[in-house]
Amino acid sequence: MTGPVIVINPNSTEQVTRAMDQALEPLRLAAGPEIESLTNPGGPPGVETQEHVDRVAGDVVRMVREHEDRASAFVVACFSDPGLHAAREATARPVFGIAESGMLAALSLGNRFGVLAILSGSVPRHLRYIRSLGIESRLAADLPIGLSVVELADASRTLVRLGEVGEILRDHHGADVLVLGCAGMAAYRSPLEERLGITVIDPTQVAVSAALAAVRLGQTTGPRRRTA
Amino acid sequence: MTGPVIVINPNSTEQVTRAMDQALEPLRLAAGPEIESLTNPGGPPGVETQEHVDRVAGDVVRMVREHEDRASAFVVACFSDPGLHAAREATARPVFGIAESGMLAALSLGNRFGVLAILSGSVPRHLRYIRSLGIESRLAADLPIGLSVVELADASRTLVRLGEVGEILRDHHGADVLVLGCAGMAAYRSPLEERLGITVIDPTQVAVSAALAAVRLGQTTGPRRRTA
Amino acid sequence: MTGPVIVINPNSTEQVTRAMDQALEPLRLAAGPEIESLTNPGGPPGVETQEHVDRVAGDVVRMVREHEDRASAFVVACFSDPGLHAAREATARPVFGIAESGMLAALSLGNRFGVLAILSGSVPRHLRYIRSLGIESRLAADLPIGLSVVELADASRTLVRLGEVGEILRDHHGADVLVLGCAGMAAYRSPLEERLGITVIDPTQVAVSAALAAVRLGQTTGPRRRTA
Amino acid sequence: MTGPVIVINPNSTEQVTRAMDQALEPLRLAAGPEIESLTNPGGPPGVETQEHVDRVAGDVVRMVREHEDRASAFVVACFSDPGLHAAREATARPVFGIAESGMLAALSLGNRFGVLAILSGSVPRHLRYIRSLGIESRLAADLPIGLSVVELADASRTLVRLGEVGEILRDHHGADVLVLGCAGMAAYRSPLEERLGITVIDPTQVAVSAALAAVRLGQTTGPRRRTA
Amino acid sequence: MTGPVIVINPNSTEQVTRAMDQALEPLRLAAGPEIESLTNPGGPPGVETQEHVDRVAGDVVRMVREHEDRASAFVVACFSDPGLHAAREATARPVFGIAESGMLAALSLGNRFGVLAILSGSVPRHLRYIRSLGIESRLAADLPIGLSVVELADASRTLVRLGEVGEILRDHHGADVLVLGCAGMAAYRSPLEERLGITVIDPTQVAVSAALAAVRLGQTTGPRRRTA
Amino acid sequence: MTGPVIVINPNSTEQVTRAMDQALEPLRLAAGPEIESLTNPGGPPGVETQEHVDRVAGDVVRMVREHEDRASAFVVACFSDPGLHAAREATARPVFGIAESGMLAALSLGNRFGVLAILSGSVPRHLRYIRSLGIESRLAADLPIGLSVVELADASRTLVRLGEVGEILRDHHGADVLVLGCAGMAAYRSPLEERLGITVIDPTQVAVSAALAAVRLGQTTGPRRRTA
Repeated sequence: MTGPVIVINPNSTEQVTRAMDQALEPLRLAAGPEIESLTNPGGPPGVETQEHVDRVAGDVVRMVREHEDRASAFVVACFSDPGLHAAREATARPVFGIAESGMLAALSLGNRFGVLAILSGSVPRHLRYIRSLGIESRLAADLPIGLSVVELADASRTLVRLGEVGEILRDHHGADVLVLGCAGMAAYRSPLEERLGITVIDPTQVAVSAALAAVRLGQTTGPRRRTA
Repeated sequence: MTGPVIVINPNSTEQVTRAMDQALEPLRLAAGPEIESLTNPGGPPGVETQEHVDRVAGDVVRMVREHEDRASAFVVACFSDPGLHAAREATARPVFGIAESGMLAALSLGNRFGVLAILSGSVPRHLRYIRSLGIESRLAADLPIGLSVVELADASRTLVRLGEVGEILRDHHGADVLVLGCAGMAAYRSPLEERLGITVIDPTQVAVSAALAAVRLGQTTGPRRRTA
Repeated sequence: MTGPVIVINPNSTEQVTRAMDQALEPLRLAAGPEIESLTNPGGPPGVETQEHVDRVAGDVVRMVREHEDRASAFVVACFSDPGLHAAREATARPVFGIAESGMLAALSLGNRFGVLAILSGSVPRHLRYIRSLGIESRLAADLPIGLSVVELADASRTLVRLGEVGEILRDHHGADVLVLGCAGMAAYRSPLEERLGITVIDPTQVAVSAALAAVRLGQTTGPRRRTA
Repeated sequence: MTGPVIVINPNSTEQVTRAMDQALEPLRLAAGPEIESLTNPGGPPGVETQEHVDRVAGDVVRMVREHEDRASAFVVACFSDPGLHAAREATARPVFGIAESGMLAALSLGNRFGVLAILSGSVPRHLRYIRSLGIESRLAADLPIGLSVVELADASRTLVRLGEVGEILRDHHGADVLVLGCAGMAAYRSPLEERLGITVIDPTQVAVSAALAAVRLGQTTGPRRRTA
Repeated sequence: MTGPVIVINPNSTEQVTRAMDQALEPLRLAAGPEIESLTNPGGPPGVETQEHVDRVAGDVVRMVREHEDRASAFVVACFSDPGLHAAREATARPVFGIAESGMLAALSLGNRFGVLAILSGSVPRHLRYIRSLGIESRLAADLPIGLSVVELADASRTLVRLGEVGEILRDHHGADVLVLGCAGMAAYRSPLEERLGITVIDPTQVAVSAALAAVRLGQTTGPRRRTA
Repeated sequence: MTGPVIVINPNSTEQVTRAMDQALEPLRLAAGPEIESLTNPGGPPGVETQEHVDRVAGDVVRMVREHEDRASAFVVACFSDPGLHAAREATARPVFGIAESGMLAALSLGNRFGVLAILSGSVPRHLRYIRSLGIESRLAADLPIGLSVVELADASRTLVRLGEVGEILRDHHGADVLVLGCAGMAAYRSPLEERLGITVIDPTQVAVSAALAAVRLGQTTGPRRRTA
């Protein structure tokens, strides 16, 4: 029997894990595989700095190793994809990162994608990553909504800010598809699309979809195969 | 009830449609949506030239229009993605092309992807398309196996040639993931992976996976939304 | 005796053919070759969507084949270059597209080029093409003037809009050369240059110039030679 | 009356000027403008180093200023385009460089262009220039034939070397169009095309063609206009 | 009084620290600042995988924090630059990584740089990093010498392999400057230059030079300033 | 004994040489090498056009040749790097250009760099150079402060303009590090950093630092070595 796709939330906030898990409901099918979401108890409440990213990378790999025997695939559910490439080296199971998957999906849903970052401090990190993916010519812009974690709890205000920054991305930077630059924001996807009239991507949903497909098709991520 | 994902084979060869359809079995789930493969009766036996590509583009859009009411998504199953962008303008249903989806998937399954083209005449067309996607810095190389359509019927010889050219892509060009540059070759994926030790992608499988995910998640492709 | 350079207007509007033909007067020399402009009777009144582009591509190739024996070169006179690469595969005569030729010419007449598109829906199509040409680092921006075909008939209003958008391209995006993103607008070139103080290119004129030069120099476009 | 297009050979070798002038015969038309080739008496016998390039740049601008009143356009006929941008700042007449024009022309005559350099020391200079043009993704390779100036006098040996290196560019680097990386080699164009079966460009011919077109169309090169 | 530039060897091998420290002698000046090399006792013997990189990143930041008060600048001396950006966010002192500094230095010492990696598994990691720096168009190739850590102890064999792979980088890939893709290999720089006739860069030396200059000039690395 | 690093001011304005020389004080160490600044008596008062750049290139090479025997390295101190590559071909001593060194240094001090040009006419020249370096994906923007040479003498006004344009680069274009696009402006670096809160680079200081490091490490610039 095929094991579950395990979705790892690298931060320690159960609420984020729950929000994200709930958004995966439409992907849960009788035929399986199951989708299981795990919180990283040792992580920070939110992954907000490069130091957080580097730190939780180790946790992610540890969790991948711990669950490798029973899992069929993994998803790293933090928009900085912490530990993604280390996990790929550590296991032959397919591993997907939500930033990578979300932005690649954007390339087939629009011409130039915008990223809605949470904090301004994340933008340089995102830009380094986008260049490392080699897709910078498709980026419209990566802009922060500039809300602190506390303020994010206020859903209506968050939606307002996502809308305001989304409009700037659409109108001033020419984005025709947007990627939510954070896990656990799937609830905003639909109202934001409604407001802006362009496609909005929840990166966790598309990464989990890619993982499910890889399992069904028997794909593996490359690097490990080679040395195998 | 959700309609089927319709996979359009733009050429007229039923055998290709069947081969490709068979490779989609693992993606057919009780929960649906169904996957239905259609042949383009008006197409050439194989889409081999830019003229073929341009010609069948119109057929693809016509078929999309014809089935729009009952379909939930479409996949254009020819490695030149004929009519892809026209279809996206013509319908609010998500439309995926196998070349676009296959090569984007490669970006998360390896570092540099190689493309196994059928004919040398396809290579410049592929290169133009890869540049239009903005992912040329991730391309290892696009090389033809150089078999005529008649010779393709000889499966063991085709596998030998795929293996030989795959080795060149892997060893001389640094490819660590390969994309089969043609629909209906899924049967070669597994033996080729076995031989080369690196991931091989059947682009039709990943495009259909992306379409299924889009349906389950309620995504649409961007351009139409805006003017809607 | 050398045959004429045949300029194909892929749309069915005779008025566009005439406007464009008239702008080619300075290129008509006693020594020849002659320049002959043809309308595509089966085309739409204007090529405005990707579907139009794909559809007229077939017409263009058919017209190329029909006139191949008597022509010395061809120009596809629509800013989406419909059928350009198919025509190049179909004939050993040199074939030029006005978008390709116009934007390449811009690279030697300025540092960063701006494109004046007609409709906003054309912009993603242009961007895909500019990336496929590999010249996106030289693009300032591609912006629509946003006039419907009916409104284009109002010449003074069209010039006003070209001027307004041209100023944005020049001042906000750093364009120092502009390309008119449509055939048959040569009449605006000179007044627009006057107003903006930077070079403006009529792409049909430069594509026809390139075709005439190719004929005089005995050049052919590459792909066909190889298989010849 | 329209003045001549003046073609400046920045080196002092009259023989090069004559060879190049002769290759322009097909572009000389009764209707004019005339084409006049000038040698730079103060230049080195061949422009072979960056120092030569920088030195003759001043000569080129001086010659442009001296002939500005009577010329309609200028062509700098050395594959390093010495003084090109300075000349453009110095005059409102259109100025073309053979490297820029030759490589841009290649982009519409093939998919990936190869450059046949004379000396290996020229290659880094060419690469810097190709990157400055922003067209490096279209370059197959730039390889030297490695003949000294003395050896170039031996035409049959030169043709043999051009053929050998041309084959490497075509077969190992995927070039489907070649640019002769030197002025005054037009005589080799046709036999080389014959041998290799792909298009070969004499950059002086295409630059002069572009200059003639600019004169006929009343175009100017951008920078000067702005400050005018 | 100005504190020392602290060079952090993220692996636990004292011998590497010593080799690297010795190569910094020519940079130690009476006027200071001093240069102090530290080993990471908690690191692996060699940083060979992405997991190692992620793991030691935390150690690097901890060491930076621990020594921040007395240091004037930091150098991360491992060719994967572990913790570089996290360290930059954590301190206002300038922080340099040897891969970043070594490859940027290469850009002013040659036209296309080659990287001599130790293991083939490092190459995809290097390529991701090179793309994230945005300098991939200047890369000739990144090739492994393929020696295990044990075999590296054999200096004469290591030099032979560096020479063999260096020749391939120079002759087949057009590299005219090479970067040693590992800390602590400075001893090979001079003999390798001798053998290959092109510049070879020890990345630790140039990163420490950059750090010394930053201290003398009072420069800081950007990100921290902004939020300060 | 090691000879001095010779810093060549290609313009004839002694005041610029003095300003720049003074800013090098922190780099002058007892251990040497000495730093010596030379004015080009034959240069224009300021290098403001491409013609100036080409003209002084010859002077730079002449000065390099004249002082080669006694110098250990050279720095070309003009933001257009006149004669840089010619000087590298002419001498085995390391030669650095302030634009190249300043912009490469910016890549390790921030994510996207802005350039503060003096005149608008310099911008296209800078852009050509930035593309030739292959680092255009890291450029935020290059904007002129638009002061004439006479107005530059007014220090407080210059600082105001640098601040205004620096704010636009930071806030509208996302620059997090700035490069002063002119030699002899080091005095503005510190107050500008103070005002803008992001790193500002004096390119002469970093180029001289790179030259000192090259001397101490025994590095040479690549091209000459090869032919040596």
